[in-house]
Amino acid sequence: MKDLFYTKDKARGKERTFLKLVEEVGELSEAILLNDEHKITEEIIDVIAWIFSIANLVEIDIDEVFFLKYNNSCPRCKNNPCTCDSI
Amino acid sequence: MKDLFYTKDKARGKERTFLKLVEEVGELSEAILLNDEHKITEEIIDVIAWIFSIANLVEIDIDEVFFLKYNNSCPRCKNNPCTCDSI
Repeated sequence: MKDLFYTKDKARGKERTFLKLVEEVGELSEAILLNDEHKITEEIIDVIAWIFSIANLVEIDIDEVFFLKYNNSCPRCKNNPCTCDSI
Repeated sequence: MKDLFYTKDKARGKERTFLKLVEEVGELSEAILLNDEHKITEEIIDVIAWIFSIANLVEIDIDEVFFLKYNNSCPRCKNNPCTCDSI
C-alpha cells in the first residue's frame, strides 16, 4: 500500500488523511444501517486502506505492532477467548 | 482475532460493534490533534481490531477481499503509484 499511495498521502498530511478515514467510516455506517453485506465489505476495505495510509505517514509497521498487542490473547484479561467484563 | 472476541462481538451485534469502532476513531482523532505518535499507534491498532470484529460478524475474510481490491495497483487508475486526480 505504501508504494501505491504514499506520495499522495504525504502531500495530504495525516490530519486530512484522517478526514478521508472518517468519510469511509460514515459510508460503513450507512452500509450497516442498510444491512447491505456487499457494501459493508467494500467499506471495511476502504476503512482499512485509509488506516494503512495514516500508519504509513507515522511510519508504523502495522503487522509488528498489532501482533505485539494481540498475541493470541486479550491484552486486558490475557485470556483466549476474552473474558473481560466489558460491553 | 475471531477466536478471541467473536462470542462477545456476536452478543453485541454489528451495530453496537460499529459504535465501538467509532469510539476508537474518536480517540485516534485526539491522538492526531495531540501529535502523540505513541497514542496514534495505539489507536490505529484499536481501530483495526474493531474493524476485524465487524468483518468477523459479516463473515468477511479481510485478506481475501483486500487483495482482490488492492492487487498491487490503484483500483481506480490501475497505476502504481496511484495517479488519480483526487484529493
